[in-house]
Amino acid sequence: MSNEDLRSEALDWLSALERSLAGPEPKGVAALFGEDCHWRDFVAFTWTIVTLEGRDAIAAMVATRAAKVGMHDLALDGEPKRIEGGLEFWFTLATAVGRGRGHARLRGGRCWTLLTTLRELAGHEEKRGETRPRGTVHGAVRNRRTWADERADDARLGIDRQPYVLIVGGGQGGLGLAARLKQIGVPALVIDRHEKPGDAWRSRYRSLCLHDPVWFDHMPYLPFPDHWPVFTPKDKMGDWLEAYSRIMELDLWNSTTCRSARYDADERRWTVEVDRDGTPVILQPQHLVLSTGMSGKPNLPRVPGQDVFRGVQHHSSAHPGGEAFAGKRCVIIGANNSAHDIAADLWEHGADVTMVQRSPTLVVRSETVQRLGWSLYSEAAVRAGIGVDDADLIVASTPFAVLPQMLKPVVQRMKEEDADFYDRLRAVGFMLTFGEDETGLGLMYPRRGSGYYIDVGASDLIARREIALRSGVGLAGLTADSVVLDDGSTLPADLVVYATGYGSMTGWAADLISQEVADRVGPCWGMGSGTARDPGPWVGELRNMWKPTAQEGLWFHGGNLAQSRHYSRYLALQLKARFEGMTVEVYGPGA
Amino acid sequence: MSNEDLRSEALDWLSALERSLAGPEPKGVAALFGEDCHWRDFVAFTWTIVTLEGRDAIAAMVATRAAKVGMHDLALDGEPKRIEGGLEFWFTLATAVGRGRGHARLRGGRCWTLLTTLRELAGHEEKRGETRPRGTVHGAVRNRRTWADERADDARLGIDRQPYVLIVGGGQGGLGLAARLKQIGVPALVIDRHEKPGDAWRSRYRSLCLHDPVWFDHMPYLPFPDHWPVFTPKDKMGDWLEAYSRIMELDLWNSTTCRSARYDADERRWTVEVDRDGTPVILQPQHLVLSTGMSGKPNLPRVPGQDVFRGVQHHSSAHPGGEAFAGKRCVIIGANNSAHDIAADLWEHGADVTMVQRSPTLVVRSETVQRLGWSLYSEAAVRAGIGVDDADLIVASTPFAVLPQMLKPVVQRMKEEDADFYDRLRAVGFMLTFGEDETGLGLMYPRRGSGYYIDVGASDLIARREIALRSGVGLAGLTADSVVLDDGSTLPADLVVYATGYGSMTGWAADLISQEVADRVGPCWGMGSGTARDPGPWVGELRNMWKPTAQEGLWFHGGNLAQSRHYSRYLALQLKARFEGMTVEVYGPGA
Repeated sequence: MSNEDLRSEALDWLSALERSLAGPEPKGVAALFGEDCHWRDFVAFTWTIVTLEGRDAIAAMVATRAAKVGMHDLALDGEPKRIEGGLEFWFTLATAVGRGRGHARLRGGRCWTLLTTLRELAGHEEKRGETRPRGTVHGAVRNRRTWADERADDARLGIDRQPYVLIVGGGQGGLGLAARLKQIGVPALVIDRHEKPGDAWRSRYRSLCLHDPVWFDHMPYLPFPDHWPVFTPKDKMGDWLEAYSRIMELDLWNSTTCRSARYDADERRWTVEVDRDGTPVILQPQHLVLSTGMSGKPNLPRVPGQDVFRGVQHHSSAHPGGEAFAGKRCVIIGANNSAHDIAADLWEHGADVTMVQRSPTLVVRSETVQRLGWSLYSEAAVRAGIGVDDADLIVASTPFAVLPQMLKPVVQRMKEEDADFYDRLRAVGFMLTFGEDETGLGLMYPRRGSGYYIDVGASDLIARREIALRSGVGLAGLTADSVVLDDGSTLPADLVVYATGYGSMTGWAADLISQEVADRVGPCWGMGSGTARDPGPWVGELRNMWKPTAQEGLWFHGGNLAQSRHYSRYLALQLKARFEGMTVEVYGPGA
Repeated sequence: MSNEDLRSEALDWLSALERSLAGPEPKGVAALFGEDCHWRDFVAFTWTIVTLEGRDAIAAMVATRAAKVGMHDLALDGEPKRIEGGLEFWFTLATAVGRGRGHARLRGGRCWTLLTTLRELAGHEEKRGETRPRGTVHGAVRNRRTWADERADDARLGIDRQPYVLIVGGGQGGLGLAARLKQIGVPALVIDRHEKPGDAWRSRYRSLCLHDPVWFDHMPYLPFPDHWPVFTPKDKMGDWLEAYSRIMELDLWNSTTCRSARYDADERRWTVEVDRDGTPVILQPQHLVLSTGMSGKPNLPRVPGQDVFRGVQHHSSAHPGGEAFAGKRCVIIGANNSAHDIAADLWEHGADVTMVQRSPTLVVRSETVQRLGWSLYSEAAVRAGIGVDDADLIVASTPFAVLPQMLKPVVQRMKEEDADFYDRLRAVGFMLTFGEDETGLGLMYPRRGSGYYIDVGASDLIARREIALRSGVGLAGLTADSVVLDDGSTLPADLVVYATGYGSMTGWAADLISQEVADRVGPCWGMGSGTARDPGPWVGELRNMWKPTAQEGLWFHGGNLAQSRHYSRYLALQLKARFEGMTVEVYGPGA
């Protein structure tokens, strides 16, 4: 097909879609899709984040929603590109309430994957560029209010007046979401237990750096500058978050912990008890966002002997770093990211380190994953004019159900390129996995948010037996001076680090609200892939994340920096629509 | 001429320049220039900032410098454009020590204006994009040093080891320069008397906002985000500077004042006495940069009766804002920017305000100057792909000597468009000027850094007689309760604000170093235009700013945000070359 043919096909399909959406018969829409089809919607059609799979699901959604959504003005955005068996293209769209972008892949003239996103609400657009605020009112204004006056007013949010949204957790997720809400005028208060913004990072073990590269990590509105290091050191990240919260004028209470929250369905608001630096305060927001971190609630194994162990024991999240452990015998329970980082840090400080690997780990070399897996987020992408927002949309254009077939060849190539590396690990007994279906990190992370190590050096220490490895065994208990494994062997120990991961964010809801609400909402994260730690049924999107839950007014936000950046846009839009009193009919679960 | 002809002419001229620079006869170079010709050099040829005017001056410089500079690899950068009588084009260049950019305007086949700039030193390029730091060392490193360790070390600069450069003054100028030096690895310490970065802005009168729009004001490396207000409020500017100094990892001592400085010519270093939060410290940098502010050293008139006046009197820089003066009789001495701002602020707080205008003021409406004067720094420019660095170079491509002919038509148009506005001011006796040669703000600022008001509302209050005006009179003295003017009249007064401007930055050198050094260096700012407050002889560039002075190791940095941004690059390069021990032969004054 010539470029002109590609263009015609894309335009024809778009206008057919627009016509049939406006028509009376939803089956007409379904007919534009192939047998194997996926429509991923970010808020535009469904007021939630969902992927509809198959013509029947699509027809059902269209029947309910098309007339109300009123999608129109579909326009090709850029040039279509060839893909195997067809073409793909971007388009812009409008609905009755706003504007968005979409992406389609056609094969054999019918749609294979469709992405629709709502990006802004008409009349409530972000004010930037041409429409940015003036900063001052020129002319003579008696008793003029200044920016400092407005900020002093903002500081009374939660005291003189209630926030519309309360965000629990002021890490990168909470701060980025608050920034988005600020830009569209939704009063939001962030509370965080740490003394200063960024302290959640500063308080971690000293060698910690981001494992994702800088191009992946930009926060909304304020990109890292051009000289920012590839892998941000944790204290630098802390400083960035502190600066970010100030520059973005966020309303943030530090040294504040959330004690409890309960929802009044009649009043449609929460009553949240918080402790602000020792003073109890009641907050009554209409929406409660738990942004307490994927890695927020430690899993601590309970085994016999922990009470008699005379050494130091703590969860990985409480590990201070290796300084105090030179010459000490250290046992790390677990073999994922934190376990590797802490093991290497202890080794660097001259400790005698043993890692206890209970189950296989997905290991990918940082350099390899950056080269093969993250090309959209790289200096090459910047040079090619692919902005971070473009990259996020490109990633979003592939539904989770379609990802395996795209990821498997990449994983295969990684295995081949790094065969020696993996062989060396196997040679010392390290148990490897590449995901049950060989889809690698790209799905391991959304499925379970754990189970992997992005290698930045510890694997070589393991392969060289500088870090000792016990694999295929579990933790049975402790004695006064050793770790007992479930094969009956013991490891003398001065330090035990439980790098045993974190519980589902829903655990926070159980603690703060009630077990009943947590049970009703169900687990966060995972998409029901039926693989380890992500039991079915298949739901096709991350459970409960960034979208309505079974508990009115309760939302979950989190993930790595890239997810927090990308999804916070859609979460903010959903909150804004409610704040403006718009009619919001959520399609499907959470409705 | 066709585009192809333009291109040929540009390429021909460039290769002729390159050939004749490499040849033995400097007159060959001069022959490439027209009778009326100007070669502006930023460091590339002269290791200073200078404009050579006329063929003889150019031939003389080339004779001295061409062989040593070794300019080569001149290459057209982008497409030439037509101008009246000829063409203009950008080019890239290399010298024996680095790389830069240039711009030329040809008329009748010969050069009218030439700009040459050195932008980076080979082997000492800024590390960004592809070459940005890694942030961590992957692999196993015993006793690894972290980013926090490095920053803790940096905090010992000035204690355990001496800075190469000491920057006195941590406003936008000092911080931006420190950021540039950090990026190219020159140890620089900034000292500032305020408690926190940004306090110099925060401590000013409450209604203060930047009068320049955001597009003009970006600091190096970290542009303001897209939603930043057009006119930054002073407290927001303070927060930005505080965040900036942290994000850019600047080495900064606040609550620190400079007591004295003396240069040891044998040791080639300074001995600087500072008071750091009550503790005396001796610093011994090799270079001392005074970045104490164009608006740093208040001019306070001394008149009889100031000791008996029972009201409040202070310089504009100490004015706290109008809150306390509702219903009070306030007299402002002066009629430039601060005078207008303070008068309007007092009026807004319900004071009874009189402005005393001693000499004519250049008034331009903010909207007009933004539309007609700052099109290079605007949302339209951003859309057209003109980055702030491009805009700075475009501005730099016009030597000061050539500016009048470019500015006069713009001023004429402003006068016509705003004729009503100016008539209303004249009608109440306001004395207007557009510069002695009608060149407006574009030259008033570089000539004297004062004498103007960018109208954001006070002019209307004056025209409506809401702010009373006494013009063409001077201050003779004070009595217990009034201001006495030099026509013998009096104004009852509860508050007198001396909006009487600031002394030359050289005054700081006199205070800190010695009058002898200040006299030897001579005044800062101004180019010898022979107009008010900028006496001749003509020197063609701002005196003593951002370039070598008659005192070895002494430098002046300052100006508005745009100048600080632009010129700090060249100042930083000059310091870097010395830090690296390169041979630096300064051409002309300051050599």
